[in-house]
Amino acid sequence: MISHYKLTVQYKGTKYSGWQIQVGTNEATIQGELNRALSVVAKTEDVRSMGSGRTDSGVHALGQVVKISIPLVIPTENLVKAINVNLPDDIRVIHAETSHEEFHPTVDATSKEYHYRFTSRRGFTAFQNELIVNHPFDLDLEKMRAACKILIGEHDFTNFFCEGTEVSSYVRTIFSCDIMEIPQGDWEMLPPHFVFRIVGNGFLKQMVRLLMGAVWNVGRGKISLEEFQSALGPTKVQRLGPVAPPNGLYMVRVNY
Amino acid sequence: MISHYKLTVQYKGTKYSGWQIQVGTNEATIQGELNRALSVVAKTEDVRSMGSGRTDSGVHALGQVVKISIPLVIPTENLVKAINVNLPDDIRVIHAETSHEEFHPTVDATSKEYHYRFTSRRGFTAFQNELIVNHPFDLDLEKMRAACKILIGEHDFTNFFCEGTEVSSYVRTIFSCDIMEIPQGDWEMLPPHFVFRIVGNGFLKQMVRLLMGAVWNVGRGKISLEEFQSALGPTKVQRLGPVAPPNGLYMVRVNY
Repeated sequence: MISHYKLTVQYKGTKYSGWQIQVGTNEATIQGELNRALSVVAKTEDVRSMGSGRTDSGVHALGQVVKISIPLVIPTENLVKAINVNLPDDIRVIHAETSHEEFHPTVDATSKEYHYRFTSRRGFTAFQNELIVNHPFDLDLEKMRAACKILIGEHDFTNFFCEGTEVSSYVRTIFSCDIMEIPQGDWEMLPPHFVFRIVGNGFLKQMVRLLMGAVWNVGRGKISLEEFQSALGPTKVQRLGPVAPPNGLYMVRVNY
Repeated sequence: MISHYKLTVQYKGTKYSGWQIQVGTNEATIQGELNRALSVVAKTEDVRSMGSGRTDSGVHALGQVVKISIPLVIPTENLVKAINVNLPDDIRVIHAETSHEEFHPTVDATSKEYHYRFTSRRGFTAFQNELIVNHPFDLDLEKMRAACKILIGEHDFTNFFCEGTEVSSYVRTIFSCDIMEIPQGDWEMLPPHFVFRIVGNGFLKQMVRLLMGAVWNVGRGKISLEEFQSALGPTKVQRLGPVAPPNGLYMVRVNY
């Protein structure tokens, strides 16, 4: 009999080629490592896992939600321990609960939260690169926060997705978006920095990183708030900024 | 003409076999990377560097002090930029000043500060392992702080050094020692943790890691404060605890 569980998984994406198993390659992926651990725990290759979203190579997660289906009945607390013993230390299951067979981690999600961590210093620290991206430019935070406000609501994100990943609709709703300042405090080994925080009902491929890149360019004065606003529609315009690098991005929470 | 400079260097030790160049091996070291960068900047192999102390494989530094001697006169601000461009991103020069020829970064040091970062949770997060060690035991912080107080003053550290590294004296003075609590705050990707902080006039090889191991065992109730105190003398006793792993240790500051 197959049992279904809903896992919350945390990972540091640095060493992995993203969430999704890459068939026919030797590249390590989070799902590949998880399935391997599940096979050990369930003592069979007959294991399945489904993530709430594919994170790209180098992207991190604090709360990826994964439905797993394995032929094993086990208390969830023991399941967490058994899986973690078999995972590398940069992938951790932090919670497990039993799940209905019908639960679908992607389709059933009502909202997702992403964070993008960056500094704007000329130099960077020796400890930050895998966790916090350095964007070494003078940034007008007030303008960037105005851009965040513009993002809230329902928009067509035709200008903010990775070409080649066509979907049926580019319309998504952003519930919340802002920029937080994280002081260094006693975290001497890592720098004070900013978090671009965005919550929405769904995100297209590379959408958060493209939005971050555009918001950076608003902050640098390379594009105006008007240009930013008018790109939020179905008409294709020239790209507003870079795809921000993956190492600053965190999938933080998925709500159902 | 040879110029001398005093550099302050920060590094994440994870990928390196310690500070010191290993002659006859291919292992990457901080000094090896630094010398390579200096050779590019000074356009000659005739470069020398001397650190204030050798950090072991995997140990980090926030403020290693390094005297360099190169046949190049250059403003210190430009020197910092030129070296950093040629270093990997997990090694950063954060400050440079001109130095007398007589300056000796080891002998002239009046005190050094080390930090050891650890958590005591049953589980650990996916992001901490390279920066914060997990020591998954119930710890009595009050007792550990009492042990820190006992450490302050002049002691013979015969029981707290790595065998095979005999020196002329095992007596060192500890000026300050305590345990700080670092709250998570907005640093969601890393856990709240403790910092064992120690300042002294000098440290024997692996002394801080052996002290950390003993203080952990005080916290676990495996050794009493009396046993801890009586090990601080010239008489060899049984080892009081493990050598704490290198990944939690940071060389923070060197004072002259």
